[in-house]
Amino acid sequence: MFDLSMGKYREIVNIRTEAEGDIIDLSALLAKVLQNSGLGEGFLCAFVPHSTCALFTIEYELGLQKDMRETLQRLMPDDIEYEHHLRWRDGNGHSHIRASFLSPSLVIPFSDGELDLGTWQQPVLMELDPSGRDRKLIIQIIGDI
Amino acid sequence: MFDLSMGKYREIVNIRTEAEGDIIDLSALLAKVLQNSGLGEGFLCAFVPHSTCALFTIEYELGLQKDMRETLQRLMPDDIEYEHHLRWRDGNGHSHIRASFLSPSLVIPFSDGELDLGTWQQPVLMELDPSGRDRKLIIQIIGDI
Amino acid sequence: MFDLSMGKYREIVNIRTEAEGDIIDLSALLAKVLQNSGLGEGFLCAFVPHSTCALFTIEYELGLQKDMRETLQRLMPDDIEYEHHLRWRDGNGHSHIRASFLSPSLVIPFSDGELDLGTWQQPVLMELDPSGRDRKLIIQIIGDI
Repeated sequence: MFDLSMGKYREIVNIRTEAEGDIIDLSALLAKVLQNSGLGEGFLCAFVPHSTCALFTIEYELGLQKDMRETLQRLMPDDIEYEHHLRWRDGNGHSHIRASFLSPSLVIPFSDGELDLGTWQQPVLMELDPSGRDRKLIIQIIGDI
Repeated sequence: MFDLSMGKYREIVNIRTEAEGDIIDLSALLAKVLQNSGLGEGFLCAFVPHSTCALFTIEYELGLQKDMRETLQRLMPDDIEYEHHLRWRDGNGHSHIRASFLSPSLVIPFSDGELDLGTWQQPVLMELDPSGRDRKLIIQIIGDI
Repeated sequence: MFDLSMGKYREIVNIRTEAEGDIIDLSALLAKVLQNSGLGEGFLCAFVPHSTCALFTIEYELGLQKDMRETLQRLMPDDIEYEHHLRWRDGNGHSHIRASFLSPSLVIPFSDGELDLGTWQQPVLMELDPSGRDRKLIIQIIGDI
């Protein structure tokens, strides 16, 4: 149970999104980074240092991508008044609010060098800003060999 | 402060839910798993490898369980059109969207072998699928002795 | 990559909120606690052991604070009927539901002794209870020197 070979590993990956509402499957990327780490069991934390972008899990198929975009538009519409926009005129008040609800941080456990994800459960990055952006994805891992 | 006795511990627990909207209190279970670990201070990550099930914290009493079900139904109704359903005909588009908003991952710190939960704050698993299911709860812990 | 100098650090900070909807910037506080830890790379978990209070990230400016309050009021209004209130008469059903959606737990990776936060991304504590409260913020860190 106790193991003195605890270690850490870290990678930063640049991801280009093309448009608002893009949802990018991170499954293969996170699996590869975990493999690069050489670590066997522990936690992986994926994090985006951005306030109009989010990470979450979803069954990655086109239907749910559309449903997610429509749900966000129904709950936090882009065409109502946001005080953020009135003050800063950058037209992304809805993006900020959506990102705060969805979270920039996703912690996934792993064992035997494999993430504990379900078959129909993919980790994704969603672009919430009105335009595509260069996004930075930080992957920090702690575990043992 | 620094401690070379860092270790990890892991258990997988099967949980049977009976119906959509079931909310199961995990307090006693997580306390027991933490005790089994023998670890004193660190993080516990509870994770469900499912896309129509979620983990969160709530004051565990019948009133809020009803309020949570009604809030989900108001915000992500089960009787509107989901593209997921149109494509796959499995009638659980709303379940997936609710799960993405609520998250499958819950990280709780602990010290002196006890989770840092408030008196009126219980960790729970919520069934979001239209029927009861056999769910897998992964509990991964990292900490020191 | 592997490092036998893994360690942990922990602080508990008391935070006084004045009113419902208060959003408190934790940036300087978390940076200081991380510095106190002497740790270089790993995870920081901030956690509130409360069921009517939440942690998340947002661009900390007055406009978005107002937008966040208005969004919560639109999605989980304080003036509809909550079963929690009917049973317990404490008038904070909406506070509990909002807290469950927003989460009491925030995990942020760090390296070189600095949190991986974006320039316009601040970690915050939001008071969701109808009145100001004394809140406890637990900061648990695991990483290496």
